[in-house]
Amino acid sequence: MELKIDILGIESGGKHIIFLNKHDADELGVSASGRVKLNSKKDLTAIVNLSESIKIGHIGISNEVKKTLSLRQDSKINVEISPFPKSLQFIRNKLNGKKLLYQELYEIVKSVVEGNLNEGEIASFVTALHVQKLDLDEATSLSSSMVDTGKQLKLGAKTIVDKHSIGGVPGDKTSLLVVPIVAASGLKIPKTSSRAITSAAGTADRAETIMPVNLGISEMKQVVKKANGCIVWGGSLELAPADDLFVKAEYSLCIDPLLLPSIMSKKKAVGATHLVVDIPTGRGAKVKTIGEADLLAKDIIELGNRLGIHTHCILTYGEQPVGYTIGASLEAKEALEVLMGKSVVSDLVDKACHLAGSIFEMTGKKNGFSLAKEMIQSGRAEKKLREIISLQGGNSKVRPQDLPIGHEFYEYRSEDKGQVLWMNNHILVEIARRAGSPIDIGAGITLNKKHGDKVSKNDLLFTIHAEKSTKLSRALEILHEKKPIGVGDKMEMFIHQVKETPVVRRAFVLDR
Amino acid sequence: MELKIDILGIESGGKHIIFLNKHDADELGVSASGRVKLNSKKDLTAIVNLSESIKIGHIGISNEVKKTLSLRQDSKINVEISPFPKSLQFIRNKLNGKKLLYQELYEIVKSVVEGNLNEGEIASFVTALHVQKLDLDEATSLSSSMVDTGKQLKLGAKTIVDKHSIGGVPGDKTSLLVVPIVAASGLKIPKTSSRAITSAAGTADRAETIMPVNLGISEMKQVVKKANGCIVWGGSLELAPADDLFVKAEYSLCIDPLLLPSIMSKKKAVGATHLVVDIPTGRGAKVKTIGEADLLAKDIIELGNRLGIHTHCILTYGEQPVGYTIGASLEAKEALEVLMGKSVVSDLVDKACHLAGSIFEMTGKKNGFSLAKEMIQSGRAEKKLREIISLQGGNSKVRPQDLPIGHEFYEYRSEDKGQVLWMNNHILVEIARRAGSPIDIGAGITLNKKHGDKVSKNDLLFTIHAEKSTKLSRALEILHEKKPIGVGDKMEMFIHQVKETPVVRRAFVLDR
Repeated sequence: MELKIDILGIESGGKHIIFLNKHDADELGVSASGRVKLNSKKDLTAIVNLSESIKIGHIGISNEVKKTLSLRQDSKINVEISPFPKSLQFIRNKLNGKKLLYQELYEIVKSVVEGNLNEGEIASFVTALHVQKLDLDEATSLSSSMVDTGKQLKLGAKTIVDKHSIGGVPGDKTSLLVVPIVAASGLKIPKTSSRAITSAAGTADRAETIMPVNLGISEMKQVVKKANGCIVWGGSLELAPADDLFVKAEYSLCIDPLLLPSIMSKKKAVGATHLVVDIPTGRGAKVKTIGEADLLAKDIIELGNRLGIHTHCILTYGEQPVGYTIGASLEAKEALEVLMGKSVVSDLVDKACHLAGSIFEMTGKKNGFSLAKEMIQSGRAEKKLREIISLQGGNSKVRPQDLPIGHEFYEYRSEDKGQVLWMNNHILVEIARRAGSPIDIGAGITLNKKHGDKVSKNDLLFTIHAEKSTKLSRALEILHEKKPIGVGDKMEMFIHQVKETPVVRRAFVLDR
Repeated sequence: MELKIDILGIESGGKHIIFLNKHDADELGVSASGRVKLNSKKDLTAIVNLSESIKIGHIGISNEVKKTLSLRQDSKINVEISPFPKSLQFIRNKLNGKKLLYQELYEIVKSVVEGNLNEGEIASFVTALHVQKLDLDEATSLSSSMVDTGKQLKLGAKTIVDKHSIGGVPGDKTSLLVVPIVAASGLKIPKTSSRAITSAAGTADRAETIMPVNLGISEMKQVVKKANGCIVWGGSLELAPADDLFVKAEYSLCIDPLLLPSIMSKKKAVGATHLVVDIPTGRGAKVKTIGEADLLAKDIIELGNRLGIHTHCILTYGEQPVGYTIGASLEAKEALEVLMGKSVVSDLVDKACHLAGSIFEMTGKKNGFSLAKEMIQSGRAEKKLREIISLQGGNSKVRPQDLPIGHEFYEYRSEDKGQVLWMNNHILVEIARRAGSPIDIGAGITLNKKHGDKVSKNDLLFTIHAEKSTKLSRALEILHEKKPIGVGDKMEMFIHQVKETPVVRRAFVLDR
């Protein structure tokens, strides 16, 4: 059927969508959320929306469709019903409990990347993976498919190392230390990182306060060739692009079945040969118990083996934030101070040296932990970070005090005395996000006390920073409802009472 | 945050959607597919889309939002992030295998009806129901919730009967006979029916060729008060409106977990006290075996009990079309001829009389089958149908030859001799749909032979009718690939060979 083009000027988040009058859709035999094939210079499959404001004989197109096919207002285009995508049948097989083969998962991932599946179909696939689980064969196939449908970094080096955290603990600026420590030793570490989705800051958000992180793949390659390491945002590189589309569905549903394929595909895409994965463990982390973490580690290591990546896991204590800061700028400042020897943050240094040390030992170096510590103490890690900052286009002379901290603040003081018995990661993250993180880079939290610290009445427990007073007020509202830190002489026995069917909103950390 | 309104002139299929610039979305703390609350004269929750073509400080709105809140271009509206809907947590609980209570399912259904869940979230719920299954308690709660969130028909009669088929067999015009038979006996049967989704014609499509079916609830009430029966389209009545939204997700995913709640909620909403459900059974029907059909019948009857509807099920032979016609106009013609005594269609009459007879016996009448047959033979059923046609605004004098049949046709003749060994329902439906059904009411198929009929070489097996030659050609293409009817002396043993991983596209009939 030939239809006349109406450019609607709307964007659809990367998907190819078009609008038809119901009459024409009926003639074509498609319904809303169905698919049509547009035949222009090349073929394009697009998702159908119905709209009475589109005239009969016309087709409304989104900016994405306009761009992909270089279409002009009022020109004609041939539109046909698109054949049922094979991938939909494979999704249906998974819904019914069937195990999927590589070719089938590849077809699904390809359909996702090409925009041939609508929002509901992708959500259904992610739901089916969550409910039916995916075994290691499927996780391997998915990881490979995600690599095969994206771009890849080819460094041409024999050994390429990488580091990843499954996330979930606030204030985790460990990568800002590990990358320069490892790169300073001469190992290549092409680190890609993500922005916050549900957390207060991602590594890309932290790094961006001291240097540009939106590099293309060839720029990234140049930086790593010169400095052995980089810290760039993964989102603009198109490594495993399917993941961003899966994440959209997962976020809304609060499920995360693609955690492992998502992590491993991105490591494979940068050519990693050796990998250390951090699994923060404990109440308030993604993984609650050591037993659970060990089982996850087993899967990660085996998945690494199958993908040809020598992988170790490090379980770390995840029941409180890492270091004393939460929020992009505050965290970058803390990392910089530690590398410059201006500040002692023992848990952060311990974690970073265990991760970097493990990478050292995997690649044949002895006494990895001490070697990593030496890289900090000698100033070599700081020098390396400044080299990376410079190569990525930042100011290599940046000082901790140059990093902007929001001027609005609130000091949270203890009403009790004793010691810090617990800290609630999720509430601290919620406070930081309401205060403006990660959009307002100067927003966040500075902690004064951590687990086990002695506390007198009226002692400062933490300070909330914000760039805008309205956001500070929004952050303070939580303090009326929820307690972020428990102080006392001994643990109180009473947790809470359940009198009627409770609505449990479980905290969900998607960032990975 | 106060934003300036841009009326985009697009429709979003009933959902409330808005478009924001990424900058404003970040400031509000929402992402694509998230929810915002619009505060105008009343509050409205809408789903967020991101678009760079919306200026900072503006909000693009769909026609639905414009209408619901009576908004004007360039006026200001207050927009805030909407709290996380409780229903999403309940969906997540089902994803994790938890049984849901009435209050929780009600909350989900309410969210669906109010447009507070996005396409992916609804798809995930439907997927979770399919994978985790729903037990009878949950099916009852869902049915009640779907009734409680929609309109209801209050006839005020002590006995109200109804009939339903779970669908899946082409040519099933049984309701066009059952309604007048039952109504002629004095029982009230307020029949609502659906249009075709994946089939060649729904009862509403068939009925619409002889009378208007888009009645409102008060018009429907008037018809039933006067004639005891009606045949109207359920879609415009807003009985169980959630179902239409669930169907959209189910259609795309080829799953049907809401079959029972969907059927029973609509029966409850019209106040049915007695119900007969037809379960077509056999190869080519939805339910393949008698054992399976009996188990389904058990669930339907128990669900009826819990909802206070006395329910019987009738298993019927579903391996070939009912009667000799497929397609809206052709089927209405066949039903009319049978009621007028102009044509003998024994399977159709047998089926209709078993269903109507069962209703008679449930409500205390004896010899139901004979009584039903008598209603046809005496002409009382025809008279009743003409009364209903007239009350619904149609021409009560309509003759079979007045019904339009497409002038384009193709005669499909047998290349073999013997007898009809099998008929493939799905291929026949595909032929009818390609020929134009249900949009082109004159399109469809007339069968000349059915199961067990003797066939000589070159005998006419069926005729394909179409309104347009292009559609007839599209229908004929299938005949090159697939065989709709098997003719021979004995069943051939060989089915097919599998040489490589096959892509199995299973036929899926959603209509219910």
